[in-house]
Amino acid sequence: MKKILILGGGGMIGQKLAQKIIRENTFGAAEITLFDRAFPVGDLGLKAITGNIADPTLAAKLVANKPDYIFQLASIVSGQAEQEFELGWDVNMMPMWYLLNALKDQHDVSGGSYVPRVVFTSSIAVFGGPYPDKIDDEFLSAPQTSYGAQKAACELMLTDFSRKGFMDGVSLRLPTICVRPGKANKAASSFFSGIIREPLNGIEAILPVADTVRHWHASPRSAAGFLTHAGLLDTDKLDGRRALNLPGYSCTVEEQIEALRRAAGQEAVDLIKPVPDEAIIGMVKGWPRNFAPERAIKLGFTSEASFDEIIAAYIEDDLKR
Amino acid sequence: MKKILILGGGGMIGQKLAQKIIRENTFGAAEITLFDRAFPVGDLGLKAITGNIADPTLAAKLVANKPDYIFQLASIVSGQAEQEFELGWDVNMMPMWYLLNALKDQHDVSGGSYVPRVVFTSSIAVFGGPYPDKIDDEFLSAPQTSYGAQKAACELMLTDFSRKGFMDGVSLRLPTICVRPGKANKAASSFFSGIIREPLNGIEAILPVADTVRHWHASPRSAAGFLTHAGLLDTDKLDGRRALNLPGYSCTVEEQIEALRRAAGQEAVDLIKPVPDEAIIGMVKGWPRNFAPERAIKLGFTSEASFDEIIAAYIEDDLKR
Repeated sequence: MKKILILGGGGMIGQKLAQKIIRENTFGAAEITLFDRAFPVGDLGLKAITGNIADPTLAAKLVANKPDYIFQLASIVSGQAEQEFELGWDVNMMPMWYLLNALKDQHDVSGGSYVPRVVFTSSIAVFGGPYPDKIDDEFLSAPQTSYGAQKAACELMLTDFSRKGFMDGVSLRLPTICVRPGKANKAASSFFSGIIREPLNGIEAILPVADTVRHWHASPRSAAGFLTHAGLLDTDKLDGRRALNLPGYSCTVEEQIEALRRAAGQEAVDLIKPVPDEAIIGMVKGWPRNFAPERAIKLGFTSEASFDEIIAAYIEDDLKR
Repeated sequence: MKKILILGGGGMIGQKLAQKIIRENTFGAAEITLFDRAFPVGDLGLKAITGNIADPTLAAKLVANKPDYIFQLASIVSGQAEQEFELGWDVNMMPMWYLLNALKDQHDVSGGSYVPRVVFTSSIAVFGGPYPDKIDDEFLSAPQTSYGAQKAACELMLTDFSRKGFMDGVSLRLPTICVRPGKANKAASSFFSGIIREPLNGIEAILPVADTVRHWHASPRSAAGFLTHAGLLDTDKLDGRRALNLPGYSCTVEEQIEALRRAAGQEAVDLIKPVPDEAIIGMVKGWPRNFAPERAIKLGFTSEASFDEIIAAYIEDDLKR
């Protein structure tokens, strides 16, 4: 019986991940524990623990039963980490330090036999401009946001604790995930989902940037797939570079809107209202636009090949009709 | 009167830096405070504080008088960080976190007017192979040692606290500094100095690697120069990328030995005894060999243009005759 711990298990991707693991029996017979500060209504019937990830004493308790797989998804989003500087480091960086040390303690107590798989959701926010046309697997991590710096620092720690054999970690630099179900969040990237999701639900959506903005996307379905794939990955194939740029689809907002038109007609597109927001325009300017994630593709990670597919995934998985 | 704080001020580079600042009056009228766990015999007549850099309460005390320039050089070396894993993170990473937070507190208390220059000695150990022929300024930081991971994590934190305007930081990825005066240390790179220094002092030296090994060097004199140059640098020119690959000289051990022969004759070269050490051979295999540090050169950082110059700097500055 495998023990699986999902930190941030109450979040959108955490819930998708748990559902996928159950549905597909990814790790065979498994007991899943979710941790988060709160859980959505309508739980999955799994063991759920609430608490504050920034509590330095928490990690030791969460890993006392030696989980075989730990998915570390807990995080505050980019916009919030930028506005609340101290909270950002306290929630997005220090808990990784606590977690790695707690896992190392269990490793040491076990005499070295306990070497869990740790999968961490990093982000393409670890990159900062100026960028080449396509960011390749050797491009530097020089983040220009606190969120990106925090994720990059976590990557470094996870890689080093893994290199030493205390655990077996992988950091996944997720594309901007859209179309996210539910409500807009504080992420500066939230509008990428909003301009598709709200019109599909007959609601007006705000577009705060020009439609020429190009960005890098994958669906929530792909995000869950990245995570389970990383859980089962032969990490010897990573050659010590345990942070991966993942596949995604690069397109402009205009192309997104054209895909929406194909999926739901002009009526849906008419619900998008351009309302320029200088703060968001400024942040988005610094974001990556396109990648050549050859390592991850060779390692078998897959995502959508068009924005139509990304919209279709939302309609199939999340749109309530 | 400028206040200058040198953390690691008892170390070889810290002492060279303090001497240079005094000799050249780099920052005008200045009061220099050195901090270290211990100081060499024959001090510089400066204010010297001893303590443990890993003490979480230390930084607040050290920066209570709002130093204008902080040089953070305190560190354990690569070999020790590899052998003593927990000590490495406690000494090489966490103190940067304490320091940045203590400086931010002073910034906040000052109503935002206190924005000190922080110069951090990072290392080319932030890089990990496989490498291109020459590492350019956009090559990724994917360290393969704990020392490198710790330095890279510090860079990320310093950059983000600086981006927010709490301080004004620069991280310098020092080449391997040689010829170091004094005794061999626990750094795996110590032999690069030893094979020159010991023969020049009439002592036998051990060469633990093949003479085909290529590496990237600058003198202690250049190291002190990098630090003062970074202290005076117009950081607007960094465009937010506050970690710099520095100039150096790339050569093989064989070329080093030939330069020694030119400086001190066959008699000196005969004192080098090849004694292969598999542990050191293994570590050195993963080290960078050559760089194209265009940004730093444009920013006015300079170093030696030959290994003969590096040896000459040792003879002029440190060799006791």
